[in-house]
Amino acid sequence: MAENPRLPDQVSFYHLFLLLLIPCQVLLSPVPNDQIFQYIDGHQKEYIQRLKDWVAIQSDSSDPRKRQDVNKMMEVTKDFILQLGGTVEMADIGEQRLANGETIPLPPVILAEIGNAENKPTVCFYGHMDVQPAKQEDGWSTDPYTLVEKDGNLYGRGASDDKGQVLALLHALESLINMNDLPVNVKLFIEGMEETGSDGLEMLIENKKDTFFSNIDYIVVTDTPWLSKKPGITYGARGNCYFSIEVQSSKVDLHSGGFGGMVYEAMGDLIYLLNSLTDANGRILVPGIYEAVAPLSENEEDLYKDIEFDVDEQRANLGVKKFLHESKADLLMHRCRYPSLSIHGIEGAFSGTGTKTVIPSKVIGKFSIRQVPNMEPSVVEKQVKDYLESKFSERKSPNEMKITMIIGAKPWLTNMTEPQYHAARRAVTRVFNIEADMIRAGGTIPIAKTLEDYLGKSLMLLGIGGPDDATHGQNEKISKYNYIGGTKLYAAYLQELASL
Amino acid sequence: MAENPRLPDQVSFYHLFLLLLIPCQVLLSPVPNDQIFQYIDGHQKEYIQRLKDWVAIQSDSSDPRKRQDVNKMMEVTKDFILQLGGTVEMADIGEQRLANGETIPLPPVILAEIGNAENKPTVCFYGHMDVQPAKQEDGWSTDPYTLVEKDGNLYGRGASDDKGQVLALLHALESLINMNDLPVNVKLFIEGMEETGSDGLEMLIENKKDTFFSNIDYIVVTDTPWLSKKPGITYGARGNCYFSIEVQSSKVDLHSGGFGGMVYEAMGDLIYLLNSLTDANGRILVPGIYEAVAPLSENEEDLYKDIEFDVDEQRANLGVKKFLHESKADLLMHRCRYPSLSIHGIEGAFSGTGTKTVIPSKVIGKFSIRQVPNMEPSVVEKQVKDYLESKFSERKSPNEMKITMIIGAKPWLTNMTEPQYHAARRAVTRVFNIEADMIRAGGTIPIAKTLEDYLGKSLMLLGIGGPDDATHGQNEKISKYNYIGGTKLYAAYLQELASL
Repeated sequence: MAENPRLPDQVSFYHLFLLLLIPCQVLLSPVPNDQIFQYIDGHQKEYIQRLKDWVAIQSDSSDPRKRQDVNKMMEVTKDFILQLGGTVEMADIGEQRLANGETIPLPPVILAEIGNAENKPTVCFYGHMDVQPAKQEDGWSTDPYTLVEKDGNLYGRGASDDKGQVLALLHALESLINMNDLPVNVKLFIEGMEETGSDGLEMLIENKKDTFFSNIDYIVVTDTPWLSKKPGITYGARGNCYFSIEVQSSKVDLHSGGFGGMVYEAMGDLIYLLNSLTDANGRILVPGIYEAVAPLSENEEDLYKDIEFDVDEQRANLGVKKFLHESKADLLMHRCRYPSLSIHGIEGAFSGTGTKTVIPSKVIGKFSIRQVPNMEPSVVEKQVKDYLESKFSERKSPNEMKITMIIGAKPWLTNMTEPQYHAARRAVTRVFNIEADMIRAGGTIPIAKTLEDYLGKSLMLLGIGGPDDATHGQNEKISKYNYIGGTKLYAAYLQELASL
Repeated sequence: MAENPRLPDQVSFYHLFLLLLIPCQVLLSPVPNDQIFQYIDGHQKEYIQRLKDWVAIQSDSSDPRKRQDVNKMMEVTKDFILQLGGTVEMADIGEQRLANGETIPLPPVILAEIGNAENKPTVCFYGHMDVQPAKQEDGWSTDPYTLVEKDGNLYGRGASDDKGQVLALLHALESLINMNDLPVNVKLFIEGMEETGSDGLEMLIENKKDTFFSNIDYIVVTDTPWLSKKPGITYGARGNCYFSIEVQSSKVDLHSGGFGGMVYEAMGDLIYLLNSLTDANGRILVPGIYEAVAPLSENEEDLYKDIEFDVDEQRANLGVKKFLHESKADLLMHRCRYPSLSIHGIEGAFSGTGTKTVIPSKVIGKFSIRQVPNMEPSVVEKQVKDYLESKFSERKSPNEMKITMIIGAKPWLTNMTEPQYHAARRAVTRVFNIEADMIRAGGTIPIAKTLEDYLGKSLMLLGIGGPDDATHGQNEKISKYNYIGGTKLYAAYLQELASL
């Protein structure tokens, strides 16, 4: 010990020097040398290239003319799962009836399995491969179907909703498989009609309840965003009752010079009806609509106070002058545990740039109500129809008016103390060295309610989208931070789940 | 005489037989052998083919991307006038400033002359070669830019407004020239920006007041429809104050799930503002807007009682259940001598088929007021802006709102006892064997007011469109009856004018 009395000090200095070379974030992480994370970091380029290939397929399920692209997207996904060693069934779910009465085939649904060891738990993941409509002229900075990397973000339609999230999961599986470390059996349940209401899916679940879906322990939906940079685990989602109001005043569009002052214009009626839906503060004016909303429980508001969400920063990011509610808790509750109504647009009127002096003959207003527990879509439908029909009748217009509820998706809410939520929280801490936010989604994951109702298994929404991903808007993106970190999160979640 | 006592009787029977072979309509016409009419009848196929060629050029002036097509249309028109022996100047009228701040060249204006004999009167004709937007998916039965003949009608964008009308005039000139019978000097003044407000035209008229426009006796505008099968000569037109209301709530479109209940939605504000414009019966709610409307003169209502217009037939043709006014006179007066307001559509919102759950960030509502003597566009602009700004301020929305009057075209009204109106009435009687209806247009012919103000010459609107031509709508058409009869009408009018 006397030979070299200064050694311990020398070692200390040397080690201290080495420590200074290591980036701070690694120091904070409790498992800096997690092999699976290293593997994932080493394959980032490949993951981004695959996302680029998948975004390029215009799988817009709302446009019947793009049905072939949706089908192609399902095939490409199938091929990748086969590469991972999975087995895949492409389930036929019948036909879609279009507004004009024609029918076209619905895209097949992927029912895949990877592993079936008896001693391992089985997790079923749900995701979707279809996207919302997108056109560059809507205000995109770049072509929506060409993935563009800029300032740490990956821009493109579906980058976040939901191609990026499904790919993060598939890459997590690939990394675990390649490391010979897949600790669970996995089922993959991937559809192509989510953005238009998951046509045909409920019947498929019912039909496959005792076969594909029979031996499942956990269900995870990979289609939700976080509320901030901090990962969020979602235990609830609002529903969606999507309506159209169609008003027709003449057989064909008319010139506003030749006929203005002669006809009861369809647009006037539609605008009047749409204007009767909410007040200036967004409060829904449909009588009775708030009656079924679950009352606030005793400590419920506190849940929202703890969530990481910077109101002012969000406001500034969105370019919004003022939010409808001032406090963080109020705002978050109106985002996810109270209903809201949005008017999306009008079909059949002049929507181009410039001027057109037309009296549109038939116009279709579109709006939706995000409803919450315990609002039943069928009740909402009746309330909305009764109200609008009575408003229209008050107006005494001679025009034809028809209201249709196009989508009637239920809200969903579960118990966040179930075991797989613990696994997910531990995975978040391992990957991001932070406590996850426990949140409810403002959007709709109809599948959550349906799967839980039919299968009666624990269900969790573990998405990896960012709060500002602009899903459904222009310049949709996912950050590389979320995309790669999310891949690690799925891998870690499966490891944690196996060790429960 | 005794040699053949039965001869007179024989001749009578023979002539009676011959008379039976002559079609009825010729018998009713006072000038059955008018050579110019025979010439025109003999060239119908050629006239229709040329209309087909011209309709195929997509000269939509509202779409900057189609500016080259408008330019091409002007070139083709120039070439035909040169063929007729005319001289043509293509007048440069400068640039158009687009909404995004960019500028693009305006299409040139045709200033042409055919003949300059000192002993002949000079008539200046105005028409336009640009068209309204048209897409087959708007509800056209056939491609809007392919002229299709069906049941005596010629369908295609611009068939009636205004390519068909200008071509009828040019063919009338061609027929008179080929018969060596052009009895007047003709000037042709043809533009390519009428459908978007005749940008740059007023300055051109001012600049050319003492040159091209200096030695004109009469001005005729060939851009109006009749009110029935009966030809109409137009002595007045409404103006057009076209407005946009732009409301912006966020930087980009938002997902209605993620943000519904958080933001003051731009669509809600816009719908509210649009709804405040008229009541259920189309009455304009902008304060003071009716104050400047010229009061009804003593016998004015009688003018409308004599016009041929079958209210029930019109209603049925349009597929309209009920008109805003019941009596023929009331309806016609609200069509052309009282103002009306039409809402045309919304730019920036979801306008496709299917469902999109978007909260549009920036929406632009478009509406226009067809104003009448003595409503000044600048006064209308102030009234509308003041009213909407006060309504918006009442709403207390934090969003940005901006109102713009994009078009401010004046109404026009003249004295229908001027000499050229007599020539036109005589021409109508010669061609159609009927008394013309003296009418006012519900639409806008901004050029009428401008030309009259600058040149101080007698101006008449002698159009040949039909009442159901659906100009600005789907399936625009002109009937062969109007197209060919209209060609004869222009030829006869010039002959009658020369004999005044």
